Amino acid sequence: MKLTCTQSDLNSNLSLVSRAVPSRPTHPVLANVLLIADVENQCLELTGFDLSLGIRSNFPAVVETGGSFTLPAKLFNDIVSRLPDGNITIDDDEGEALAEPSGSYIATLTSTSGRYEVRGMGGEEYPELPKVEEGEVIHLPPEALINGLKGTLFATSPDETKQVLTGVHLKVQKDGLEFAATDGHRLAIVKTESVALEGESEVEEIEEIEEFEVTIPAKALREIERMIGMRQSSEAVALKFDEGQVIFELGEQCLTSRKLEGQYPAYGQLLPDKFTNQINVNRKEFLGAVERIAVLADQKNNILKCSIDSVNQEISLSVDAQDVGSGRESMAAQISSDEPEEIAFNVKYLIEGLKAIPSASEISIQLNTATSPVVLNPLGGVKMTYLIMPVQLRN
Amino acid sequence: MKLTCTQSDLNSNLSLVSRAVPSRPTHPVLANVLLIADVENQCLELTGFDLSLGIRSNFPAVVETGGSFTLPAKLFNDIVSRLPDGNITIDDDEGEALAEPSGSYIATLTSTSGRYEVRGMGGEEYPELPKVEEGEVIHLPPEALINGLKGTLFATSPDETKQVLTGVHLKVQKDGLEFAATDGHRLAIVKTESVALEGESEVEEIEEIEEFEVTIPAKALREIERMIGMRQSSEAVALKFDEGQVIFELGEQCLTSRKLEGQYPAYGQLLPDKFTNQINVNRKEFLGAVERIAVLADQKNNILKCSIDSVNQEISLSVDAQDVGSGRESMAAQISSDEPEEIAFNVKYLIEGLKAIPSASEISIQLNTATSPVVLNPLGGVKMTYLIMPVQLRN
Repeated sequence: MKLTCTQSDLNSNLSLVSRAVPSRPTHPVLANVLLIADVENQCLELTGFDLSLGIRSNFPAVVETGGSFTLPAKLFNDIVSRLPDGNITIDDDEGEALAEPSGSYIATLTSTSGRYEVRGMGGEEYPELPKVEEGEVIHLPPEALINGLKGTLFATSPDETKQVLTGVHLKVQKDGLEFAATDGHRLAIVKTESVALEGESEVEEIEEIEEFEVTIPAKALREIERMIGMRQSSEAVALKFDEGQVIFELGEQCLTSRKLEGQYPAYGQLLPDKFTNQINVNRKEFLGAVERIAVLADQKNNILKCSIDSVNQEISLSVDAQDVGSGRESMAAQISSDEPEEIAFNVKYLIEGLKAIPSASEISIQLNTATSPVVLNPLGGVKMTYLIMPVQLRN
Repeated sequence: MKLTCTQSDLNSNLSLVSRAVPSRPTHPVLANVLLIADVENQCLELTGFDLSLGIRSNFPAVVETGGSFTLPAKLFNDIVSRLPDGNITIDDDEGEALAEPSGSYIATLTSTSGRYEVRGMGGEEYPELPKVEEGEVIHLPPEALINGLKGTLFATSPDETKQVLTGVHLKVQKDGLEFAATDGHRLAIVKTESVALEGESEVEEIEEIEEFEVTIPAKALREIERMIGMRQSSEAVALKFDEGQVIFELGEQCLTSRKLEGQYPAYGQLLPDKFTNQINVNRKEFLGAVERIAVLADQKNNILKCSIDSVNQEISLSVDAQDVGSGRESMAAQISSDEPEEIAFNVKYLIEGLKAIPSASEISIQLNTATSPVVLNPLGGVKMTYLIMPVQLRN
């Protein structure tokens, strides 16, 4: 294997695939990145894989001799990221490699100023990324995917024992996509309408495909969010999946992940059919006030009290943390009923939801009683629904 | 005490003085910030103090009633930093305070949107900042101070048991200032010439003052560096000191610190009188190469080998970390002698020194043998001297 590529291409692709390299690998070769030099297509393909999440990326290179090879991800990354702009030659010196103790290879990196020899392992020891040969394929507009992820990822559970709750549940329906996430304390749902995709790519209209559901680990989706963000292309993202795996394809990059097994909660049942009161407030103003009150709530169970004054069309947020102090913030609101007069929330869930609600200037807060589910929606823009349970006030 | 000031003034001054508030206070009141409202001068003065380092700042405020008062630094900071732009009223409600249990006061903060009550303590419980009534006073140009600190602070010892080595030693001499720092492994010295100060401030020329020496804790100097950086004024910084204390005065701000006791090492003796070889290299190029080689040196005692080739006027840096790989970087240099041919350094000391050397494009490396002190100087610009000991190579 011998090839030449630019430092910037190698550096950006290497840091991308390294994100799938485990920090505590279960097998030594998994601490490495797989390099495959393709003479025919004149490109270098890099792969990182932790047996659950895999990222693969390929980019143009002048390939003299093809082959495959693995190098320690961190060391390789640290060297390449510090190399000056310009060409880098990677040569695995096949002749010499044979003289090395079995399984040990040496790759030589040559840049304008220096020469590095890095010890690696043969490509044949690296596990294959899962493939989906037969299964569903849909094409998602990147914007819909980003909106769905931004509005739900924050509500997934970080607790690995919570199984399906550590992922985002994706429903592909005739009328669009639905993303949902819940950690058992709050629920976030984003609906995106089927967007007509332009361009030359072969796109199946979502209307034509069958309805299905899949739960994908948050960790993989955070990487997809990053990859789309860095890509800035409006080309559709292909999503393929079968029984156990999902694969996202973004142009020359692909991400594979295991699916989360198990029945996702029937979250639709949690949403009340109707509400007796609707409060419309300015999102930024409300978030600012909640964040200030949170400073004091932090001293007292993280609970804030919201007083709803329908006569003066005003809501007030307050905390009374006896030992340290108290705070009260008031703001104008459109309030449709005089019930309930008071309701309490966990500030953390309120702040996270308000931050994730797409940049609508106004939001609606719909509620029934001080102890039943409350639903926040942006007024206009992305269709997001955020459900939180109020906290019971001890009077 | 009742006053009104702007959120931005209060916020910036509060975060400044809070840097002197200890995270683990030895007495409860030290976790607080002292507020003194001055009716006569219509200003608010804030103080933070950990009994060693103190920072005081004052700024204009509309003061209705004077007085003093302390508030928990972190809570006060957290609330104020989140308040919207505009006026803030602080009122300690003296009438109500009397009804509170002894020693407990409540201050009310009112902003455009909200009202906060924060429990504090009386100002009389707060220790006095040290004063220097009789002692030396000099006026330092901020640029000279910044250059001196940037070139030496990094070389101080972080180890509190090392006493004087945790500070920067400042010598005021007839022909200028000399800053020095050493942690026992390397030594950094910056000389700044006496700079004529302009402006209306009463400035004693350095030539007129007596020579003296003082060692100041790095922690206090890092704060001075920040304060000067944020200030962007060319007004002189006054430095006052007596037996035990130093005080820096920067306009409306002042910083007090205890001096470090004890004899500072006679570092001048460590500098060789003359050198047999001088190598001139491009600083950025050299630093880049050292940083790349450091990736591999990190795997092997952090030691790099430097080969000096006077025939080809080239130096090469290399590391051979058997288990992981090896690296070699070469670059052009002006070399005046063919001895020594090889010398080894700790990469950490080399990198830190090269980064601190003011942005001269060329540096000189002066040396005698592979085991005697090596001195780095920028060619032009600030007069800095950086001495490191080579590492003995095991052959």
